[in-house]
Amino acid sequence: MKDIDIIPSTLKEAVEKISELPGYGEKSAKRFAVNLLDMPRGEAIQIIKTLFDMLEKIHPCSECGLYTEEEICSICSSEERDRSVICVVEETFDAFAIEKTGKFKGVYHVIGGRLSPLEGITAEDLNIEKLVERVDKNGVKEIILATNPTVEGEATASYIHNLLKDRDVIISRIAYGLPFGAVLENADDFTLSKALEHKTII
Amino acid sequence: MKDIDIIPSTLKEAVEKISELPGYGEKSAKRFAVNLLDMPRGEAIQIIKTLFDMLEKIHPCSECGLYTEEEICSICSSEERDRSVICVVEETFDAFAIEKTGKFKGVYHVIGGRLSPLEGITAEDLNIEKLVERVDKNGVKEIILATNPTVEGEATASYIHNLLKDRDVIISRIAYGLPFGAVLENADDFTLSKALEHKTII
Repeated sequence: MKDIDIIPSTLKEAVEKISELPGYGEKSAKRFAVNLLDMPRGEAIQIIKTLFDMLEKIHPCSECGLYTEEEICSICSSEERDRSVICVVEETFDAFAIEKTGKFKGVYHVIGGRLSPLEGITAEDLNIEKLVERVDKNGVKEIILATNPTVEGEATASYIHNLLKDRDVIISRIAYGLPFGAVLENADDFTLSKALEHKTII
Repeated sequence: MKDIDIIPSTLKEAVEKISELPGYGEKSAKRFAVNLLDMPRGEAIQIIKTLFDMLEKIHPCSECGLYTEEEICSICSSEERDRSVICVVEETFDAFAIEKTGKFKGVYHVIGGRLSPLEGITAEDLNIEKLVERVDKNGVKEIILATNPTVEGEATASYIHNLLKDRDVIISRIAYGLPFGAVLENADDFTLSKALEHKTII
């Protein structure tokens, strides 16, 4: 008598598959699968169909790598964007966050991750070669490195900086400083010293 | 010029749909969708197909409510299980957890949630009527109330207890006590007083 083997095989498979997603363990994968089963079946199927639809239609923009439903994304194909300024981000949603500020009028380049020796992610795994190509071909004047302010994001920015520094292009890095609403007492030393170093006269 | 509207519509829809799942906010839904897009497309489609397959094949056992691929689940249809003892649980995975212990040889009844006035979940929303039917029809001798040891699980157990207490059936509640590996100092008062109250002579 097998007591444990009462979990239906398709549920087991679903849990295994979801566990493959970054950030998911067995518990959260179970929760996801059971939440789907607990919903009215029609609604659950609608969720799955929407995901399927997304996977069928969305791919990286062939120019900049942003996720888009077109061959070329709406930013790369816009007449109003300045193609001589490229903002380099790790992922599509980083670009969406910058777009929300409304402060950037250039174009993007999504490298699709960050250098991470621990996870075995090297420069070859990232969309960096294409960035160099764009710089060489399109009369680019400025590159803003907007990878995340983390150890890995910093290493990635510095790798790209080295790669491009001999070209006739201004390379900048987004500013470190205190985030709005932060408490000085709780800020880490690095952030606080950068906030002092880059103080602005008022 | 609409700066913000660069998110592809199928990605937006996917994020909205996933946000409908309990425990998901916009951020975690985004993460889920982008993680799928970031995977090799074939693997991502495989995950979605597995979920679809699960939704097509799995439904609640018509007897006890456990999720199963059959009409009657493997426990209800097993000759080796004691149908006179019913263990009442909130959800399928609670039963799976009990099965793992190998200590229970009766059958289950999944009520599909817990009473929750705050979330508007009443007794009518739960699979309780069928439990009363089973007790009346099948010569049930014992009911073990194994709803979660939470305020809501407790209220649900007490509701079912009231419903069945005039019938000729033993009704028990799973024991409260300290979990294995717990630190006394950190235990809450309720758990600790229950652990003392139900001390066992050694």
